[in-house]
Amino acid sequence: MMKKSAGVEQSNPLFRQVYEFMLNRIERGEWKAHDKLPSIRLLADELGVHRLTVFKAYRALTENGMLYVKDKSGYYVSPGSRLANSVEEGAAILGYTVKSPMSDIQRKPVTYQFSQALIDPGLLPNLFLSDYVKKVFDLYPKVMGTYSSVQGDEELRTTLSRHFHDRYRLQLSAGELLITSGAQQAINLIAGIMLGPMDAVLVERPTYSVALDIFRRAGARLVPVEISPQGYDLAAVEELMRRHKPRMFYINPTHHNPTGYTVPAKQRKLLVELAERYRCLLVEDDPFRDMHFEEEPPTPFFAYDTEGWVIYISSFSKYVAPGLRICAVACRYPFMERLIAAKSLADNGTPLLNQKIFLHYYTSPRLQQHLGKLRIALQVHKEIMEEELAAAGWEWTAPQGGLNLWVKLPDTVPVDTLFVRCMEQSISFVPGEICDPLGEMKSWLRLSYSFASEGLLREGMRRLTAIAREIEAEGRRGE
Amino acid sequence: MMKKSAGVEQSNPLFRQVYEFMLNRIERGEWKAHDKLPSIRLLADELGVHRLTVFKAYRALTENGMLYVKDKSGYYVSPGSRLANSVEEGAAILGYTVKSPMSDIQRKPVTYQFSQALIDPGLLPNLFLSDYVKKVFDLYPKVMGTYSSVQGDEELRTTLSRHFHDRYRLQLSAGELLITSGAQQAINLIAGIMLGPMDAVLVERPTYSVALDIFRRAGARLVPVEISPQGYDLAAVEELMRRHKPRMFYINPTHHNPTGYTVPAKQRKLLVELAERYRCLLVEDDPFRDMHFEEEPPTPFFAYDTEGWVIYISSFSKYVAPGLRICAVACRYPFMERLIAAKSLADNGTPLLNQKIFLHYYTSPRLQQHLGKLRIALQVHKEIMEEELAAAGWEWTAPQGGLNLWVKLPDTVPVDTLFVRCMEQSISFVPGEICDPLGEMKSWLRLSYSFASEGLLREGMRRLTAIAREIEAEGRRGE
Repeated sequence: MMKKSAGVEQSNPLFRQVYEFMLNRIERGEWKAHDKLPSIRLLADELGVHRLTVFKAYRALTENGMLYVKDKSGYYVSPGSRLANSVEEGAAILGYTVKSPMSDIQRKPVTYQFSQALIDPGLLPNLFLSDYVKKVFDLYPKVMGTYSSVQGDEELRTTLSRHFHDRYRLQLSAGELLITSGAQQAINLIAGIMLGPMDAVLVERPTYSVALDIFRRAGARLVPVEISPQGYDLAAVEELMRRHKPRMFYINPTHHNPTGYTVPAKQRKLLVELAERYRCLLVEDDPFRDMHFEEEPPTPFFAYDTEGWVIYISSFSKYVAPGLRICAVACRYPFMERLIAAKSLADNGTPLLNQKIFLHYYTSPRLQQHLGKLRIALQVHKEIMEEELAAAGWEWTAPQGGLNLWVKLPDTVPVDTLFVRCMEQSISFVPGEICDPLGEMKSWLRLSYSFASEGLLREGMRRLTAIAREIEAEGRRGE
Repeated sequence: MMKKSAGVEQSNPLFRQVYEFMLNRIERGEWKAHDKLPSIRLLADELGVHRLTVFKAYRALTENGMLYVKDKSGYYVSPGSRLANSVEEGAAILGYTVKSPMSDIQRKPVTYQFSQALIDPGLLPNLFLSDYVKKVFDLYPKVMGTYSSVQGDEELRTTLSRHFHDRYRLQLSAGELLITSGAQQAINLIAGIMLGPMDAVLVERPTYSVALDIFRRAGARLVPVEISPQGYDLAAVEELMRRHKPRMFYINPTHHNPTGYTVPAKQRKLLVELAERYRCLLVEDDPFRDMHFEEEPPTPFFAYDTEGWVIYISSFSKYVAPGLRICAVACRYPFMERLIAAKSLADNGTPLLNQKIFLHYYTSPRLQQHLGKLRIALQVHKEIMEEELAAAGWEWTAPQGGLNLWVKLPDTVPVDTLFVRCMEQSISFVPGEICDPLGEMKSWLRLSYSFASEGLLREGMRRLTAIAREIEAEGRRGE
């Protein structure tokens, strides 16, 4: 018993690695059908592991049908073990199995851009920004020759921690903030720390499609949580937490992407309590908070967290200067240590220049003036889009902020057909199924009103609804 | 037979995922010693997989000693299965097992900085650079509001492909270049694509320690290749490629970090042929090429590659403006597709502002003037350090370029003691063992001469060698 237990501790992680290594060789076709595999002794020497480990891995693969044994002489690869398309001839390269449909849509330049949840660069304070850049060079003449610390510039983190306190009522120190290159990097780093194969992750349905791509690539299981104008069904969330023991719940609860919904204040405290009880990290992605219309949104989930179960991603750079790619992630120890280690390997820190420009602009009174104007401009954009949707008789829930409308098409307009025709006429939008972890929601689309100028917005929406009417007419004629 | 083969293809990837999922639960202590595990039916429902898959995974874990069966009633967790230190109480968080000793050294600010292979910001053209920034804002007023494409700004890639042709004789199109945020991000993305658990990766011995951290974190096996002033022993490399079937060989063949050695031209073509024959990707990291003294270094490996087995990482930003973190990666289709997909999930593209500033400065005549001056300054720095080393009677091979000296200590000076004493007196260097994939090389150290100013360099080296003499004297007195 003693002996066995010692063996277990030694061999477990190695067994897994050896097993995966063999599987990869077979999947990539480096070990082909009916190939005789190296002897246990030889392979154990090559990998530098105990022979018993190789033996166990061969056994597990045999049990699983990947290998077969012949004449007691050795192990052979079963036919059909290699996964189709998992390797490209001529380049034995491990491929990602996950593509990003969103980035495919964005790659094609179009005239009527309704697929990008970005702000029209014409609405950004470009001239002001260039002044701040000059100021940065006067203040830090060596900024281009200097690396930032991995966690991010301390001056910026100190300032942001104060601003988060004053503006969002968050209690945090500079040491509890890490600067990343955009929210996407933050999500990717967190997923890398938290998610292993088959780990459950709760995601809103619908949600930000690139986050889904990242979680899928980590091999995680997506467990959908419906989001409605009233927020979540907390009893259902609790049941999912109990059943799936999810590692984390990725939420975008304020002017939610793609729907524009905002989770009400009273649910926020309760969900944080659930997260603590079920040890499920809440990853709160909050890029649209400051882009509200009349009403200020409720306090972030992070404010209710006392035990370190909420990570807060604040990518306000969307409206400051998206090209700088500055995002702040707030979390408590010990998660911050993991995050710094991950960021260190990923790119060793976000460029200092970008952080310093951001700092000086973000803290200026000009930003508040700009933000006030921007809110009005976005509301005007939203209303133009809503007028055209109303004229077409389509359904949507009016959001209190954000950059998108989540629109239900009439049953007579198949979204696939609409999408193809629109792209042909240089109009882009995001088909709803891309945002759905289940890949359904085929009668929905996300229309971003923030990127196109007012003129193009009006004209593009008229063209889009006209195309839909054509498709309906063709359907009636039975084409 | 038909039935079995179909089953195999269905269940293989899922089996692995289910197996890993269970292992993770045990390792994180979510399933504890003597816990009864869920029934096969229940877990199969929860994970959405076939019951047979859960059964097989339970069986494999039982075989491996992680689980035990009791009274035919169910599966239980064996005691001792949970890895020590793999989880922190109070936060069920998956931890990285790999720390970065290099970033620990760099974190402490010191007066005599010999551990950073960076150029003294005082030697960089800070004033010129600020002019180029203003120019960039005039040319692209909306640069701060605009995202770059994932692959990188086309204007920059087109310019760089021409420069690489004219300066390094590389044949490549703009489509064969991707812009990353520093060489480290490039290495991390490539490792993510290429390396799975137990995959072999050839690495020079010694080499860039952060690359070792990245490969270790991917779970890869490090197979060392000795590098000497004469380059590699190609027969030994071939034997390693034959035996280990490495997925890639990470090389830094020009003014190599940490040794300063340069692999001779005649070996370059031969190694590319070996790489093609053994289907081993050569990852050529080339940050020091332009920082040579008298002689121009031989052409990159990439120039000899006709079949797409070399990836070229050109992080010339070290001497242009390291704070911008601009790096170019050259590779052929189909690897470029994988790289774009990885970059897309990692951060969706490097900031456009940084790319545009870099572009305009890199193509200016001022850069060539700056580079000429910088080469002389670096040589002066190197000579100061060499004078002090010679006075101490230590050994090193004079490099033809780069930023480091690789120094052998006398046996009477233990590097650990020297390191601790130096850090106490605000002098930093990199102990050789950090650069060694085997963690040996304990009588070596890497001294960077590029960061400290001439005065601090002289003074710091005198202090460092004095500390070594003290340690020697203590040793003689038997303290």
